[in-house]
Amino acid sequence: MASKESPSVPITPLLKDELDIVIPTIRNLDFLEMWRPFFQPYHLIIVQDGDPSKTINVPEGFDYELYNRNDINRILGPKANCISFKDSACRCFGYMVSKKKYIYTIDDDCFVAKDPSGKEINALEQHIKNLLCPATPFFFNTLYDPYREGADFVRGYPFSLREGAPTAVSHGLWLNIPDYDAPTQLVKPRERNERYVDAVLTIPKGTLFPMCGMNLGFNRELIGPAMYFGLMGDGQPIGRYDDMWAGWCVKVICDHLGLGVKTGLPYIWHSKASNPFVNLKKEYNGIFWQEEMIPFFQAVVLPKECSTVQKCYIELSKQVREKLGKIDPYFNKLADAMVTWIEAWDELNPSGAANGTAKGK
Amino acid sequence: MASKESPSVPITPLLKDELDIVIPTIRNLDFLEMWRPFFQPYHLIIVQDGDPSKTINVPEGFDYELYNRNDINRILGPKANCISFKDSACRCFGYMVSKKKYIYTIDDDCFVAKDPSGKEINALEQHIKNLLCPATPFFFNTLYDPYREGADFVRGYPFSLREGAPTAVSHGLWLNIPDYDAPTQLVKPRERNERYVDAVLTIPKGTLFPMCGMNLGFNRELIGPAMYFGLMGDGQPIGRYDDMWAGWCVKVICDHLGLGVKTGLPYIWHSKASNPFVNLKKEYNGIFWQEEMIPFFQAVVLPKECSTVQKCYIELSKQVREKLGKIDPYFNKLADAMVTWIEAWDELNPSGAANGTAKGK
Repeated sequence: MASKESPSVPITPLLKDELDIVIPTIRNLDFLEMWRPFFQPYHLIIVQDGDPSKTINVPEGFDYELYNRNDINRILGPKANCISFKDSACRCFGYMVSKKKYIYTIDDDCFVAKDPSGKEINALEQHIKNLLCPATPFFFNTLYDPYREGADFVRGYPFSLREGAPTAVSHGLWLNIPDYDAPTQLVKPRERNERYVDAVLTIPKGTLFPMCGMNLGFNRELIGPAMYFGLMGDGQPIGRYDDMWAGWCVKVICDHLGLGVKTGLPYIWHSKASNPFVNLKKEYNGIFWQEEMIPFFQAVVLPKECSTVQKCYIELSKQVREKLGKIDPYFNKLADAMVTWIEAWDELNPSGAANGTAKGK
Repeated sequence: MASKESPSVPITPLLKDELDIVIPTIRNLDFLEMWRPFFQPYHLIIVQDGDPSKTINVPEGFDYELYNRNDINRILGPKANCISFKDSACRCFGYMVSKKKYIYTIDDDCFVAKDPSGKEINALEQHIKNLLCPATPFFFNTLYDPYREGADFVRGYPFSLREGAPTAVSHGLWLNIPDYDAPTQLVKPRERNERYVDAVLTIPKGTLFPMCGMNLGFNRELIGPAMYFGLMGDGQPIGRYDDMWAGWCVKVICDHLGLGVKTGLPYIWHSKASNPFVNLKKEYNGIFWQEEMIPFFQAVVLPKECSTVQKCYIELSKQVREKLGKIDPYFNKLADAMVTWIEAWDELNPSGAANGTAKGK
């Protein structure tokens, strides 16, 4: 059995020096006040989207570095074109410049939620627990996370599978405003998520899921180079599919490499629904294209030689070009950007081999 | 969107004339007193295990039929050897003699549980809801059952998959005594399941799970002929794998036929842990064999011609003989019994073709 729940927040926060919090934003980060008790011990990487001449205020006492578009262009040079502009997809630049083992990323309209007992939820602590204990992608456990206190593997769970797999991703959920697409937002403008489901579960091997970037933790050493949020926003025919794209790529690579992806706890409080009309404009190509993207990802097979995340990702970019390029020229551009992303990642992370991921090219 | 929750128990219970409750037992059915408000409108099929000369008392006012071993032998003749004796696997005889579309089966040491608000849970009503609304086996929805009130499909869920698939199985859970194997019981004698997880979810296509027969609903027309609980108990080298076996067979057939399997709500209160020493004796072969059974079921491919449950099941029996027969002669006997079971099923259900499942042989 791996990590058990501690009765209170530990005095030295878990992974204090091994985790960066990545926040994409276009506004002052007042939302951090509410997160202060949980986030202040950690280092923040702020990716400023939009007008780089604007000043973003960060509340006193936080330790952070901030990158605006000028910084991204300066650091990446011509490769900066793989980083989206005017879209929260720009956050993945923060994953690339981090030097830590773990990343937590959160949107600036997400606040601290409360559990049914009224206690404020330390979302980051729960993500860390999820990431530090194994996942169970090869067989479903009906009592959910078997490593959690008060639970275990049930009768009929093969003993050879009870060590689980390393956890690469922890996908957290949202109370209040659910993460709906524009059509559903339009049809159900008043729907709020009020159901607190007290569970963490592993998404089984071979199953795709819609990964939302609002409240997401991952192990950068295990899966970082696949956490590319694609080409969205300014100059692109699509938006709001950045996290979905990353999730589909990440999941097929995790399945191939024997890594686990969890979803469920922790919840954050998602405060504000974005404008469904604006969203529809961003999404409509994606809504159409996803009907072909999903079968594509369901059918992806990565060859055995793809033994690192980088190799998997380069191979995936080839298959994207070959199989999705015929839907729209956008996918050829995206496939190019996927390669550029890996080149840029390896440039900024030259010791890739040292953390278990050899260079992919 | 399919069925929504009703604020109270309907006056005419759902599926009153379309569902049988199957209970295997060796003792008086006093436990039914607690279930009276929920079960009394339904017909019960009681399968009496062990000594047929013993009289089983059923509380007044329940509508039931009862079968003991003599009845099973009389009705099935030589084919009765496919029905286990001195093991709750005998319950599957009840599935075979039922003439209804739906089955709910429950153990006689299972009582009414309470939800976190203190309200008594009508387990049967929740199973019926689960069975009447679609499942989502082809893509994972992070907000769990998208058809439930207050929930929906999240952003990134392909629209073409939002009609879901027909639900064949509803697997309910247990508060208090968890369904652990003997080794886990021995190691954690005091563990109790106290976590109420307010969710119903579909087990994705391609994923196996440990199906427990304690609190289980299914659509007999869709999957009945695959709900065979195998050869267990008296004269057999294995016990306590009856429901597991059924679950693995059912899942690969549901995956092949495009049917859904759900797990989660409702909870029952499991009152008494069985003796772990006795359980270990029953289980030890299974614990060993399951390490080969699981890879077998994970690799099963059913040919396209297997268009009915019966055809799938006969094909599965062939693969069991061929692939598992080498582990132990028991599996050859089991493969024979699987064929006998289908023959007996078709004999007792001659209109199989009428309910959408043509005869399998």
